[in-house]
Amino acid sequence: MNSLILHADHLLTMDGGNAIIADGAVLVAPDGRIAQVAPAAEVMAAHPHVPVKRLANRLLMPGLVNAHAHSGLLRGTAEGLPVWEWLQQYIDPMHRVVSPQDAETASRLCYAEALLSGTTTVVDMWRYMHGSARAANDLGIRAVLVPYVAEHPAHDYFETLDTNEALIRDWHGGAGGRIQVWVGLEHMFYATPDAWKRAIAISRHYGVGFHTHSNESRFDVEETQRRHGMRPIQALEHFGLLDAPQVLLAHCVWLDDEEIAILARRGIGVAHNPVSNMKLASGAAPVEALLAAGVAVGLGTDGEKENNNLDMFEEMKTSSLLAKFSRLDAAALDAWSVCRMATIGGARALGLDAQIGSIEPGKMADLIAVRTDTPRMTPLLGGAGGNLHHNLVHAVQGGDVDMTMVAGRILVDGGALCSADLQALIGDANRAVPDLFRRRADWLRENATVDALREAAGASSAT
Amino acid sequence: MNSLILHADHLLTMDGGNAIIADGAVLVAPDGRIAQVAPAAEVMAAHPHVPVKRLANRLLMPGLVNAHAHSGLLRGTAEGLPVWEWLQQYIDPMHRVVSPQDAETASRLCYAEALLSGTTTVVDMWRYMHGSARAANDLGIRAVLVPYVAEHPAHDYFETLDTNEALIRDWHGGAGGRIQVWVGLEHMFYATPDAWKRAIAISRHYGVGFHTHSNESRFDVEETQRRHGMRPIQALEHFGLLDAPQVLLAHCVWLDDEEIAILARRGIGVAHNPVSNMKLASGAAPVEALLAAGVAVGLGTDGEKENNNLDMFEEMKTSSLLAKFSRLDAAALDAWSVCRMATIGGARALGLDAQIGSIEPGKMADLIAVRTDTPRMTPLLGGAGGNLHHNLVHAVQGGDVDMTMVAGRILVDGGALCSADLQALIGDANRAVPDLFRRRADWLRENATVDALREAAGASSAT
Repeated sequence: MNSLILHADHLLTMDGGNAIIADGAVLVAPDGRIAQVAPAAEVMAAHPHVPVKRLANRLLMPGLVNAHAHSGLLRGTAEGLPVWEWLQQYIDPMHRVVSPQDAETASRLCYAEALLSGTTTVVDMWRYMHGSARAANDLGIRAVLVPYVAEHPAHDYFETLDTNEALIRDWHGGAGGRIQVWVGLEHMFYATPDAWKRAIAISRHYGVGFHTHSNESRFDVEETQRRHGMRPIQALEHFGLLDAPQVLLAHCVWLDDEEIAILARRGIGVAHNPVSNMKLASGAAPVEALLAAGVAVGLGTDGEKENNNLDMFEEMKTSSLLAKFSRLDAAALDAWSVCRMATIGGARALGLDAQIGSIEPGKMADLIAVRTDTPRMTPLLGGAGGNLHHNLVHAVQGGDVDMTMVAGRILVDGGALCSADLQALIGDANRAVPDLFRRRADWLRENATVDALREAAGASSAT
Repeated sequence: MNSLILHADHLLTMDGGNAIIADGAVLVAPDGRIAQVAPAAEVMAAHPHVPVKRLANRLLMPGLVNAHAHSGLLRGTAEGLPVWEWLQQYIDPMHRVVSPQDAETASRLCYAEALLSGTTTVVDMWRYMHGSARAANDLGIRAVLVPYVAEHPAHDYFETLDTNEALIRDWHGGAGGRIQVWVGLEHMFYATPDAWKRAIAISRHYGVGFHTHSNESRFDVEETQRRHGMRPIQALEHFGLLDAPQVLLAHCVWLDDEEIAILARRGIGVAHNPVSNMKLASGAAPVEALLAAGVAVGLGTDGEKENNNLDMFEEMKTSSLLAKFSRLDAAALDAWSVCRMATIGGARALGLDAQIGSIEPGKMADLIAVRTDTPRMTPLLGGAGGNLHHNLVHAVQGGDVDMTMVAGRILVDGGALCSADLQALIGDANRAVPDLFRRRADWLRENATVDALREAAGASSAT
C-alpha cells in the first residue's frame, strides 16, 4: 500500500477537544496508520508527490465502533416478545440448528452491512466464529470476535470454552492485527461456577478481553438477586468475572448507583444498545450517569434480530432521543457526547483507544466520509459553532456514508462495497434461510413433548 | 400521460386485509388513478399494449403520508431545549425575520427530501405559503398546506387569517387537485377568541380542514387548565375549534381518557410525531389507546428543526420503539399497525382515505418502490407470513426508496429526484441561511431590552 492523502471539506477529528478542521487532510501511511492531520494545504505542501483523494462535499470522521452486535439471519422473523421469552421461543432453537456455513454467511452479510453504514470496528458475539474470522479477514473490517459461549447442561448447544480457546489460538491478532478474539459468555446464567473461573483464566492467560450481557432486563436483576443474593454487577465482581484484562458488558440497563461505582472503579466498558433496549422493552440505560462516573460507554446495534439493522447512525440518534425522552429533558445527552460514544468512547470501552476512535497521528486509518450534499445535511454550517455534530446525530443515516477505510484500505467507495460482491452475499443469505428455518421447525416439533414436560415440572430452560 | 403498468416482486396493498400480492402489478390510468391491482400476469394479459415498468428487486407500496411537518431551514441549529423555551429562543425570532423567498426555498428543499424518502403526501404548516404551493406544484408532491396562523397581539409576526384565506382562494384544489389548503393555527394560545371563531368560520365556508398543535407538552395541558379551567381537547371543543369539516391535531401526547373519547366521537384525526416528541422531551402519545378507540392516527415527522430529518421510515421505526419502551411491552404496537399509520391511517386522519393511502382501484396512483436487494431487507420472506412489514418498520430507511410516484407521475426514479435539480435546491438553502441568521441575530439584539423588560414584568411571550 502506498501513502495517500484524503482531503475533505470538513474533518471531524474527535480528538480530546472535538476539533474540526475546515478543508482538512489526513496523510495515510503505507502501514495503514495516520501520519499527519492538518489543513489540506499544509499536508499537500509537505507531501507534494503523494496522491490526493479529494472528498468534495464530504465530511471525514473516524470510523464508527459498534461495541455490541451479533451476526445473524433472523431479521424480521422474531418479533414482539420480551427478551427472555424471545430467547426461548426464537433464538435458542436457532442456536441448536444453525450450521457453520449459515454462521459464516451471516457474518459476511453483517460485516458488509456494517461497512456500508460507516462501521469500521465491530464487536461480534456469534457462533462457529472461524467463519466470522474468515469473513472479517476478507471484507477488511476490524473485528473483536466473541464466541457465544455457554457451559451449562441446559444450554449445551452454544460455543464452548474449548472452541473459544481454539479461536483465540487461531485468530487473535490475525489479519495484520485487525482481528481480536475475546472470551465470550452468553450470560452468567448460561454457565456453571467452574466455567466462570475457566473463562477468566483463559482470558488472563491469553491477555484478551471478556464480554458478556448483563443487567439487560428487570428479570436479569431479580433472578440474579434470587440466585446469589446480590445484584448482577456485584455478582460478576464477586465471582471473579471482572478480573479479565479488559471487560465489556452489553446493555447495563438496570443499574443502581453502587453498580455504576463498581463499573467506574474497575474500568469496565459498557456497550449501550438503545434500539434493542427499546424494541425488546428492556428499558433505558443510565447513560449520562455512567458517563458522569467516568465509565467508558460505547454504542452497539445488537443484532439484526433485535434492531433490525446495523446502522450506527440510527443508534446515535436513538441514544439521543431515548436519553431526552426517558428523563423528559431536551438537554440530556448532547450531540458531542453521542458522537464520542460512537467513536472514541466505543474504542475506550474496548481498550483500543490508543489505536482507533479518533483522527490523530499514530492511530490506525479507520476513517469514513459522509456526504454533505444531501437535504439531511442542509443547511451546512461548519466549524466549532456549526451544526455538523447535531446533524450527524439527528439527521444523517448510514446510507449517507460514501467511503469507508479500515487500516488504510478503502472498503466502501462511492457508497458501494469494494471488498466483496454484495449481491452474492445477499443471495447466499436468502438461500440459507429456508433450510435453517426448516431445521428449527423440525427441532421444535421433535422437542415439543420434552419441553412441555420440562415446563410442567417448573424448570425454566434458563435455570 | 399514457397508461403504465408497474410490476414489482411484492405488492403491499395496505387494503383492509393488508393483502400482499407476489409478482403484483398496478395499472396506472392516464388520469393518474389506479385502474387495476392484481398478479402481474393477469394485468399484462388484460392490457398487452400498455408499457410495463419492471421493478425487479423492489417492493411496491402506497406512498407515505406525512401528517405533520414544517418546512424550514433551521436543521441542527436549535438544539437542546424543551418545546416552549425552544419556541421563544429559536423559533419565534426566526418567524419575525423569515422572508417569503426563504420560505419558498425551505419548502422546495423539504418537499424534495420528502419525495426522496417515500413521502407522497405532506401536511406542511409554514409561512408565506404561496411559495410552498408553487414548490408543491413544481415538485409534484401532494400537499395539504396549512399556514402558521397567529392572531394575537403578542404574536403579530406569523401568517394571519387574511393570508390564510387568500391562499385558500388561490390554491385550494390546485395542481389538478394535488394541493389542498386548510386553515391553520400555531396553537390556541396564539389567537384570541374572536380569531378562533373566524378560523372555524373560514374553514366551514370553504369546506376545508383545520389543523393545529395540541396537548404536546405538560405545560400545554397545565396552562390550558389555568386559563380555561379545562383540559385542551375539552377547550378546543368548548370554543368550537372542533367544528371544522375535518380537524387534524398534531402531537396529542398528554391526553386523558375523556379527551380520547372526545377525539373518537368527533372524528378528529391525530398526527403522532414520535421523534419530535422524544427529542423535545415532550412525552409519549397514547397511540394504542387512540387506535383502540377508533381514532384515525397518522405519523408525522414534524420539522427539520425538531427531528432533524423528514424520513417517514425513521418515524415508523421510532413509533414502534417508543410504544414498546414507554409501556415496557415488546408486543406493543405491532408492525402492521405502524405500516397502516404511515399510509391509510394518515390518509384517514386527513379525510383523504377515499383517494390515497392504499393500492386499490379508483384511488390515486401515489406509490413508492422500496429496494429489497439490500442487507436491510435480507432475509426476504414474502407473503402474509413473511417479514416484509417487520422490516419496513424496523430496518428500511428513506434512502432505500427507489421510485416515488404521485398521481401517476414518476418524481423519483433510481433514487434520484426527477422533478427538480436537487443540488440547486441545496445550494439555494445554503445561500439563504447566513442572511436569515444575521437578521435573526439583529432582531434579538435590538429587542433584548424590550424582552428583558417584558420578562421583568412577568409577562411570558406566550400569554
